Formats: sequence, structure tokens, C-alpha cells
Amino acid sequence: MSIVVLGTVALDSVNTPFGKRKELLGGSAAHFSMAARLFTKVNLVAIVGKDFPRQHISFLESKDLNLSSLIIDKGKTFRWEGEYRGDLNTALTLNTELGVLSVFKPRISAQQSGIKNIFLANVDPDIQEHLLRKMRNPQLVGLDSMNYWINNKRKELTRLLKHVDIYVANDQEARALSGETNIIKAAKALKGYGAKMVLIKKGEHGVLFYTDKFIFSLPAYPVEKVIDPTGAGDTFAGGFMGYLAKTGKINALAIKKALAYGTVAASFNIEDFGLNRTRRLIPQDLERRLNKFKDCFLF
Amino acid sequence: MSIVVLGTVALDSVNTPFGKRKELLGGSAAHFSMAARLFTKVNLVAIVGKDFPRQHISFLESKDLNLSSLIIDKGKTFRWEGEYRGDLNTALTLNTELGVLSVFKPRISAQQSGIKNIFLANVDPDIQEHLLRKMRNPQLVGLDSMNYWINNKRKELTRLLKHVDIYVANDQEARALSGETNIIKAAKALKGYGAKMVLIKKGEHGVLFYTDKFIFSLPAYPVEKVIDPTGAGDTFAGGFMGYLAKTGKINALAIKKALAYGTVAASFNIEDFGLNRTRRLIPQDLERRLNKFKDCFLF
Repeated sequence: MSIVVLGTVALDSVNTPFGKRKELLGGSAAHFSMAARLFTKVNLVAIVGKDFPRQHISFLESKDLNLSSLIIDKGKTFRWEGEYRGDLNTALTLNTELGVLSVFKPRISAQQSGIKNIFLANVDPDIQEHLLRKMRNPQLVGLDSMNYWINNKRKELTRLLKHVDIYVANDQEARALSGETNIIKAAKALKGYGAKMVLIKKGEHGVLFYTDKFIFSLPAYPVEKVIDPTGAGDTFAGGFMGYLAKTGKINALAIKKALAYGTVAASFNIEDFGLNRTRRLIPQDLERRLNKFKDCFLF
Repeated sequence: MSIVVLGTVALDSVNTPFGKRKELLGGSAAHFSMAARLFTKVNLVAIVGKDFPRQHISFLESKDLNLSSLIIDKGKTFRWEGEYRGDLNTALTLNTELGVLSVFKPRISAQQSGIKNIFLANVDPDIQEHLLRKMRNPQLVGLDSMNYWINNKRKELTRLLKHVDIYVANDQEARALSGETNIIKAAKALKGYGAKMVLIKKGEHGVLFYTDKFIFSLPAYPVEKVIDPTGAGDTFAGGFMGYLAKTGKINALAIKKALAYGTVAASFNIEDFGLNRTRRLIPQDLERRLNKFKDCFLF
């Protein structure tokens, strides 16, 4: 079954210990799509400006994404500029230019609005809610957010969480929204906001998945040379949601496999700048690394 | 096959968000033994002072430990006083009284010196080396240390690592000794000091096991209520080394199982102060939790 992803398509400039890159194609929805496309048809709901390079559109089309709900508006494309230092675990945002994102009202075709799998990647909660209201038959809704919205639109975000199946957060966000330091207590508290399931991404420390019935915990795939972690969480979500959309089942086994696919997809993302590695991924790459990943902990 | 553990037997005073305890039975060798005894006969090599409470000796005997190489010397027992705040991930040492530890020259019986499995728990590297020289037939040697020795006896520690099979470190120690921030690079660099295998304990984030042939990574067992993490790393090592000593094999499967047993043993340790939980452990407790742990990630 196909999936709708709402989020940003951006031009990212990053500075890491391994080099600098200017205006790379990025954004939460773009990173998500690079992984999710390996499992299912991805329908991209996003906005870019008139300045968005034509070759990026061609590239996204070449990856078989449905771009009928990608708005090209007058104005500038959303730009993010960030820096990573030391162990590359935390991004330092140097600059953000919202551009057309500040007037974004997502639209979706009648056909797309009937799609059952929906991922609301990181963007203003009001925009996330705007799209979710248009969806006619949501069956599996995932949502990601960020500290900025937790701090500035907490009410809107928590209201939205009542309509979400899986809330995806990183550990800092989980602690910020819940006020708990212990990560399991944080997950439990987040579930209290209404999402049926809570998925906490811990970067190099793997993931924790929480429901009232079970807790899953997976390590990260060991990557020695981390070049650029931008979009790793979105790529994780793409692999995770993509697999669930493909299988059409939500049970313990499907979720653990989905977590493993998300982990493996994210491990590719961090090995190069922007989408440089994930744009070249084919399903066999994921399968091969999934087997290596299993060897790390299965017994 | 039985195991020799060299380390401290101490009186620990701790202050955590869940309460204060004074002069609890603790120390690296005591915590190690509480887990290792569930798998194999443990021979404790340590020193205490004349002030060491008689009931602690009786207790250790009741746990079927061989105490023939536990020295009771004139002077005071080693004491440690520490505090945990917030998420309980880092211990703040408030006070240390070495007492008899400052004159400790480990001795071992002729029979014990032929034991093949040896764990050199955290203590001065000179003392660790002193014991290792007495061992006539070391087959599997594990070593744990701490930042204090990395900073103050680096030469002695690294010389000793050449004679060690498994170097057990926490992530801070691994980074301090290797100078690397990426944990896999750190593990690789530590292997360069001579230990055949490197085991990095990451507390609530699980463990990484590194050799030139393979990397294993396991999450921690999810514990919601962490009362007192003192000795968790030693308990982990006890479960890990105890299982390996029992099976008598060092291969990928045995190591992964040993990591899982170590994880599960440590998860009990943190649920109560000192040895309060691990002293009551029986093998079936470990098995039951091992099965729950497997459910967290096996698919």
C-alpha cells in the first residue's frame, strides 16, 4: 500500500568535520522518501520556491515519487544551515530561512486523500493538522516533530497527537515534551498524550519502541565513519513506515522488522552528505545490510 | 569451569534520588561475584580490613564463593562514597578511603593459580599485574579499569592489556584511553593496545563488542525504575564472564549469549541499592528475564 509523506523539501548547507556542502537537496520529506520508496509508492506533499533547481525535480521524479502534491510557489525554497562538531551527535543550527514554508497550506489530490498510510514529518503542527484533516481514511498515521514546536506550539502538537498512531521523537525531544529523564518513563508519558505507540530515536544508541503491551529496543547499526547525520531520523522513519505500509500489518514481528529496516536505512544516510548515499540505494543494499545488522545481535 | 576474580570488596555509601544508604557491602569483585556465581564457582581475590563486618563474610560464604584468597588485614576496609543525580547515568565520587587497599598484594592458593578463567576487576593495574603473573595457565583473561588509572597509570595499564583477552571499559573510559569520540573507532584503537577483544559498556544504551572479525551490539534491558546503578558494570562483567567460563567456548554465539546474560544481570543490579537485588538472584530469574529481553529485539 502506498504512503503519503508531508514535510519539508529544503536546500541544506552543512559543515561537518569531513567538509562543507552548500545547498544540498534535503528536508524531512526528501530524506524520508529516499528510504520509503524502497518499499512502497511515496506521495510527496511539500512546497518549494521558484528558485528550486529544476534538476532536483527531475531527480525526485526519477526516484518514482508522486509529485502531484508538490507545490512550486513564488518565493524562496526553505533553507537550513547547520554544523556538526566532535562526535557529530548534535546539530547546531546556524541559520533558517523559511521562505515559502511560511505560507504553506498543503494540498492533496482526491485520489491521494484516500491513502491509508500517512507520515507527518517535521513541519509546523498546524500544517500537519491541516493535511491530516484532508485525509479521508487514515489507518496508520506517524508523526515527527522537533524541539522548536515542542517549545513554541506545544498545545497544537499535543492536540494533534491524539489522532496519531505512532509518535516518532528523538531522545531530546522525548525528554523535553515529557519532562522525564528516564527514557522509558518519557515514552510512557508521551503515550499519555494520545499516540498509541511511541518510537524514540537515540542516534548512535539505537531506538526504543513503546506501547502499553510491549517495549522493543534495538541498537544502532555500527557505522565507523559518520560523514553527515542530517536527515538520519527522517531516513529512519522512511524505512520504518515504508516497511509497515508495504506489509500492511501492525504486529510485534512487523514492528521489530520495521525498526530494523529503519535502522539500516539511517545507517546508509549518515555515510555521505545529504542524499548522496540514499539516492543510490536499491532494496538489495538494505537486505544485505539487514543481514549484517542481524549478525550484530541475533543469537 | 571455575573463575578467579580480583577486585575490591568495599563499604559503599550512596546518595541517589531514591534515598541514602551507608556502608553497604560493595566493590567491583563483590558485584561481579553476585552474577558470576549463577554460572560457575567463583574464587574471590580481594582484601578487607579488620573492621569488615563479620556478617558480610558469612554472607559471601553463603553464596558459595571460595574465600580462601580473601585477605583480612589490619587496617580499614576500602570505602567509597558517591552520589547520583538526574538520570543516574554518572556517579559523582564524594570520597574514597583506600585503607588496606593501599597495601594490597594479592595472594592465591596453588590450586586456584591453575584456574583458566580470570577477571581482573577494577583495581590498581599494578595489583592486577601482580595477580596475573601468579596465574599458571590463563586461558581467558578479562580486565576492567577506570578513568583514574587511565589518567594516572596509563603505561602500566596499557602494558598489561597486551596479556588480556577481553578489555572491558565503559564508553567514557574507552574515549579517554583511545582519544576517539566515535565509539567504534575507540574500540578499534583500544584493540590496538593488545587485548584481542574489546567490550564497551554504554550504561542505559547497551554494549558494543569489538574484535577484528565481528562487531556485536546489544541494547540495554529496559528498566524504568533505576534505584542505584553502583556496580552495574561489574555485575555485567560477572554475568558475561561467568557464562563464558561455564560454556568453555569463545565463539560468536557464545559471546552474544554472554553479552545478553551480562545485560540481564546488570538490569537486576540497578533495581535496588548495593547487592540487595543481586544477592537474591537465582538462575531462573536470569532465564526468565533473558527471555523477556530477547522479545525486545529478536525477530
